[in-house]
Amino acid sequence: MFEAAEVGRKLSKSDYKAQVPRLRWELLEAQQQLRKAPFPVIVLFAGVDTAGKGETVNLLNEWMDPRWIVTRGYTDPSGEERERPRLWRYWRDLPPRGRIALFLSAWYSSPIRHRVASRISTSEFDALLDQVAAFERALTDDGAVILKFWMHLSKAAQKKRLASFEKDPLQRWRVTKKQWRHWRMFDKFVAAADRAIRRTSTDQAPWQIVEGEDEHYRSIVVGVELRDAIRRGLERAREGRTRSRATAKTRESRPARAIDRVARQFNVLDNLDLSRQLSDARFKTRLAEQQSRLNLLQRRARQQGVSTIAVFEGWDASGKGGAIRRVTGALDARDYDVIPVAAPTEEERAHHYLWRFWRHLSRAGRLTIFDRSWYGRVLVERVEGFAREDEYMRAYGEINQFEEQLVGHGILMVKFWLHISREEQLRRFHDRTRTSYKKWKIGDEDWRNRARWADYTIAVNDMVARTSTRIAPWTLIEGNDKNFARVKVLTTLGDRMENRLKK
Amino acid sequence: MFEAAEVGRKLSKSDYKAQVPRLRWELLEAQQQLRKAPFPVIVLFAGVDTAGKGETVNLLNEWMDPRWIVTRGYTDPSGEERERPRLWRYWRDLPPRGRIALFLSAWYSSPIRHRVASRISTSEFDALLDQVAAFERALTDDGAVILKFWMHLSKAAQKKRLASFEKDPLQRWRVTKKQWRHWRMFDKFVAAADRAIRRTSTDQAPWQIVEGEDEHYRSIVVGVELRDAIRRGLERAREGRTRSRATAKTRESRPARAIDRVARQFNVLDNLDLSRQLSDARFKTRLAEQQSRLNLLQRRARQQGVSTIAVFEGWDASGKGGAIRRVTGALDARDYDVIPVAAPTEEERAHHYLWRFWRHLSRAGRLTIFDRSWYGRVLVERVEGFAREDEYMRAYGEINQFEEQLVGHGILMVKFWLHISREEQLRRFHDRTRTSYKKWKIGDEDWRNRARWADYTIAVNDMVARTSTRIAPWTLIEGNDKNFARVKVLTTLGDRMENRLKK
Repeated sequence: MFEAAEVGRKLSKSDYKAQVPRLRWELLEAQQQLRKAPFPVIVLFAGVDTAGKGETVNLLNEWMDPRWIVTRGYTDPSGEERERPRLWRYWRDLPPRGRIALFLSAWYSSPIRHRVASRISTSEFDALLDQVAAFERALTDDGAVILKFWMHLSKAAQKKRLASFEKDPLQRWRVTKKQWRHWRMFDKFVAAADRAIRRTSTDQAPWQIVEGEDEHYRSIVVGVELRDAIRRGLERAREGRTRSRATAKTRESRPARAIDRVARQFNVLDNLDLSRQLSDARFKTRLAEQQSRLNLLQRRARQQGVSTIAVFEGWDASGKGGAIRRVTGALDARDYDVIPVAAPTEEERAHHYLWRFWRHLSRAGRLTIFDRSWYGRVLVERVEGFAREDEYMRAYGEINQFEEQLVGHGILMVKFWLHISREEQLRRFHDRTRTSYKKWKIGDEDWRNRARWADYTIAVNDMVARTSTRIAPWTLIEGNDKNFARVKVLTTLGDRMENRLKK
Repeated sequence: MFEAAEVGRKLSKSDYKAQVPRLRWELLEAQQQLRKAPFPVIVLFAGVDTAGKGETVNLLNEWMDPRWIVTRGYTDPSGEERERPRLWRYWRDLPPRGRIALFLSAWYSSPIRHRVASRISTSEFDALLDQVAAFERALTDDGAVILKFWMHLSKAAQKKRLASFEKDPLQRWRVTKKQWRHWRMFDKFVAAADRAIRRTSTDQAPWQIVEGEDEHYRSIVVGVELRDAIRRGLERAREGRTRSRATAKTRESRPARAIDRVARQFNVLDNLDLSRQLSDARFKTRLAEQQSRLNLLQRRARQQGVSTIAVFEGWDASGKGGAIRRVTGALDARDYDVIPVAAPTEEERAHHYLWRFWRHLSRAGRLTIFDRSWYGRVLVERVEGFAREDEYMRAYGEINQFEEQLVGHGILMVKFWLHISREEQLRRFHDRTRTSYKKWKIGDEDWRNRARWADYTIAVNDMVARTSTRIAPWTLIEGNDKNFARVKVLTTLGDRMENRLKK
């Protein structure tokens, strides 16, 4: 989930300077129109210390007219507040229609802190999150626009930032023992945040994870999202709809051009080192090792009744088929199923899009391999426009819930994205056209998909950002070298199974 | 919650016979149109044994074309099914678009049974219910129409029915030891059902509690609701909306006329014995007893930091003010607040309708009396059309969540509906017009509300049906005799406080 916010996104100073005047003007304009509108805008800032929550709130107050903004930062509840139900202080501070509220460390803060400190159990944590989700639903059902930003930094980036603050006499006040104590609990904190975001990211009030390292980038992203959210709310109010249609229809105007360029440039895929490879000799040995290991593990899985679901997604010609064959080659045919997922049949189209995948859940103790999967909803269906924006935005949550049920039932979820460079894909396409027995593998659709490489890149990045969870993480495979890719797939699968199975 | 389904609603045989032919024709017509529509209809039947779940399902299959109906009854999961996540078997049976599914004892059955048998904790129960709610949301977001019927019988009615079945050689097979075992657990069962219904009744998939005692009544109610739900879905599909607007716009055509008459005749209010009274002499003694008891209890509450919220709703001139004064007359002025709730101010209208009530939550250890309350949303706002049908349907759930947070925080919730007969109201109105110092109490609005007595009766009945929960039950007060009403209010409040407070 946070991988997509650890890729070093930044905006040059000149790009930033070119964006700001226009964005400020647009924000003021939107704010002006909002004043007469029948709904409030509620913006939540949460996230990692020093990832720029406070600075962003200050900046928004500077960019917009602060008279119509309510800004609140919450610390521990006072005695007064403790005597009322948890949400009382937030209800009290809710903005009236026509205003904007910027809330720092609001209703997500104490559930996450209690969970990190193990003061509450997972199911108590879930109950608090459900309560918060119901609270937000009551507000959005009433017309409110809710935006939730999770400002993120990697553990290393946070350490660097804390250290640099300590050295700077002007910034030193920012760093106390508390900040370092939090930093040491980074992993627990991020695990709790992962669960919170997963369970409370709804189509009406979705989380946006923002990489906080570069000040220019994060400021523009938050400003653009806020501007667009207000505009969508106004549009909806003009049309007299009660509920916001999430983000549909306004797609074209969504990201500012500079941000769009950043999104295409810096993403989880571009962080992969595609030069990684394995010689044929080493491949042979490693393949044999990993296959025999997998065979033993799958026998143990069968005995223990533990099912595994492996999802393979990736570019056309990225080697999904080859990797899958190296997995199944290691196994007894009774132990696995490969489910190739093509366009849905007539019958499947008459059901919810998840229905056909539910059908294919196999009995206990088996490995089910999905060659493409339910992620089609947020990849091809998104890019080709078969799923509207509100549909694929909702799909992230539905998919997370689906996988949560699988994992909750004891199933091990392993998800692979096979990545190759655009050049490598072209090389493979040409190879397929030239080699007679490979010709069937390439069609017009592949060339069409290739033309939308940039759109797919954004879709993949969003998919990883929204569905790579602690319980079902994505593994990105550097696929330019087939040897390397296949061994990494086998090793990852083996490691995950070993981790899950009893000795 | 179930009080409203224990009032003895019935439909005469002649009324039934007059309704059925037309209803069948309308159901068939709706079903025919549904076949080409882009959504499925899913109908759940749950409830008390022998309340007619199975008979109703059979009847619907008889009334409609069974070729386009999927009927499923679920028992304990098979080995096959146990090897998959809980919801797998239901996903598998979901109807395609254009079809109707009738599900008996489906996804609510095992969570409720596990809870009744104490095999799971309350928070595990809640987690299962939230999972189920998310499942239903995924389906309704995709366009599905979901109807949930809870078929209810009172404990006494169920006993009578079981006994009569046992005597009848043709029905004897229906009653086994299991049914009697269930009957003995009636209270636990109903408590779990109360929680399940409260937490999963959403505006898109609301529960309908149906009184199951009279076969004619329950059959027509279910048939009418199903017909209307299909029609609403078709209308929505024609307008190209994704989400159903709950039940708005089709209000006029909703209940069949005979059912409407039954709803007005048999309701929770008509079950009250308005002839109950207390002589002045007895009143004096009882009042003094109860007031001094309340005074002691409220002192204890202050020491223990336990807050009480008492809600007073009732007809105009039903004696709310007088009853409230008898409560406050017993207390130290520092110990209570009376919040009179009139039409919202400009500022309050600019917020969510619950906002102004959140503001008035007092500090720990106090009694807060709401003279009218948040229930205005589902009473006057519903009847006067200030809240649309989708808004007040959603309000039931929002109010239940609100009260759950209050009770969860340790607050005691006591809710009164003061009932008087229409004739008694007229008498009091005339009295007010004649007595100079009472004249201010009566205005045009009171006469207007009086004219809508029948609409209010239905609204009150729905309010009790949907918001009288185990944690925050309604107490209905027989109010024709003021002495009796005041003592019952004081006694109820005292009993609830005594129950809640530590010795």
